[in-house]
Amino acid sequence: MAVAWSEKASSMKALSLSPSLSPPVILTQDELKKVAAFKAVEFVESGMVLGLGTGSTAKHAVDRIGELLRQGKLNNIIGIPTSKKTQEQAISLGIPLSDLDSHPTIDLAIDGADEVDPYLNLVKGRGGSLLREKMVEGACKKFVCIVDESKLVKYLGGSGLALPIEVVPFCWKFTAGKLENLLRDSGCVARLRNDGKGEPFVTDNGNYIVDLYLKKEIGDLQVAGDAILRIAGVVEHGMFLDMATTVIVAGDLGITINNKH
Amino acid sequence: MAVAWSEKASSMKALSLSPSLSPPVILTQDELKKVAAFKAVEFVESGMVLGLGTGSTAKHAVDRIGELLRQGKLNNIIGIPTSKKTQEQAISLGIPLSDLDSHPTIDLAIDGADEVDPYLNLVKGRGGSLLREKMVEGACKKFVCIVDESKLVKYLGGSGLALPIEVVPFCWKFTAGKLENLLRDSGCVARLRNDGKGEPFVTDNGNYIVDLYLKKEIGDLQVAGDAILRIAGVVEHGMFLDMATTVIVAGDLGITINNKH
Repeated sequence: MAVAWSEKASSMKALSLSPSLSPPVILTQDELKKVAAFKAVEFVESGMVLGLGTGSTAKHAVDRIGELLRQGKLNNIIGIPTSKKTQEQAISLGIPLSDLDSHPTIDLAIDGADEVDPYLNLVKGRGGSLLREKMVEGACKKFVCIVDESKLVKYLGGSGLALPIEVVPFCWKFTAGKLENLLRDSGCVARLRNDGKGEPFVTDNGNYIVDLYLKKEIGDLQVAGDAILRIAGVVEHGMFLDMATTVIVAGDLGITINNKH
Repeated sequence: MAVAWSEKASSMKALSLSPSLSPPVILTQDELKKVAAFKAVEFVESGMVLGLGTGSTAKHAVDRIGELLRQGKLNNIIGIPTSKKTQEQAISLGIPLSDLDSHPTIDLAIDGADEVDPYLNLVKGRGGSLLREKMVEGACKKFVCIVDESKLVKYLGGSGLALPIEVVPFCWKFTAGKLENLLRDSGCVARLRNDGKGEPFVTDNGNYIVDLYLKKEIGDLQVAGDAILRIAGVVEHGMFLDMATTVIVAGDLGITINNKH
């Protein structure tokens, strides 16, 4: 699968993680996430307005930015958080924050993803923050996505895990039914996400998440995305199409940097 | 304008309001709304699942349905309200209610509109209920739209009044800016709707409404609608494209019934 993925990626640069070590160090998934995150933070320059992502990989990047600020290696940074959780993390690290209303253009965003296809299209939202992430990352000059290699897929939905859709709570079952029907040819099954305590998971915007599970590719992603958005109860979908400018992938054999043409 | 409108309307049937009266009675705008509403309720049959609209015109239709139920001329009706306000009205009238989750297919919906173009496309949402209205009316076999003739326009936005967009409260200014930018060629100005007490108007779904004011036509409405929905902070827009199956127009000279091909 890695080969199929690589064939399509736009431009690639493989970096050895530890060229001098033999045998190579086997890193845990979390360590790989951290490697990708630290690499991404190398793109950050003093004076930038930064989109701060949400999730276990992005958390490492936000931590690293806080560390560099403390060390005086970065200064004059303004962070735009993509969730309440990241906002709290950034505040605890002393990163100055603002919002999109005050900074409608962002220099650089760094965030993880749940899936990355060979064209650098993403699935995001398994952490539940897809809407704010899409708002922030859609306002960026550069969006650097950071993942460990387990997130690479041949096609969006290909992991067999959720493609998240944010929906209004009002008649969510009806909306879920419409989604299943729309993506029927892909064997779509829709499930309401719960909070682990038997209640619906509620997003930062007060909405629900319907997770779609697909058995096959859904075809033209832009067309499918538009059709999903046309369903009235849908607020946003978790496909981030043509948005990432760079994807940094950390794997056992090193870091790969994939730039969009 | 009425002529230009009529030329495009699909099939028309003009009924005299008062053929035997001379001179014709001049009706107030509210009386015209009532005439259209009563005409629409003639489409209602016992046993139907009915979408109940919101607003000053739809209110007359809901009142009339309640009246016919009380008189025993209709029975076994189930209403699906399009707003909390209509829900309260229907309950006070004794109309049995349900929702889209239980009744994903609706036989007939009756609702007003803020604008109707010659192709029977609508602008809705000046009352603030566009999202639930679109969910319900998108689930109908038949959608009868009722208006007085002041609502007829050459093109959507042509009244110079608001084209409402439901947006998430999070960074609404950013979203409003994106909307203005998208529809820049139409001279779009975006304004947050307030509640008349200096606070933002909040929809039944906890969102805000950004009202767009246009100076020119926006071109292909489906394309514009898709582009609006692609803006991440947008929940839904107030253009109801290709949804009304019948538009009943009440004017000083009678009722006109326009059926979609």
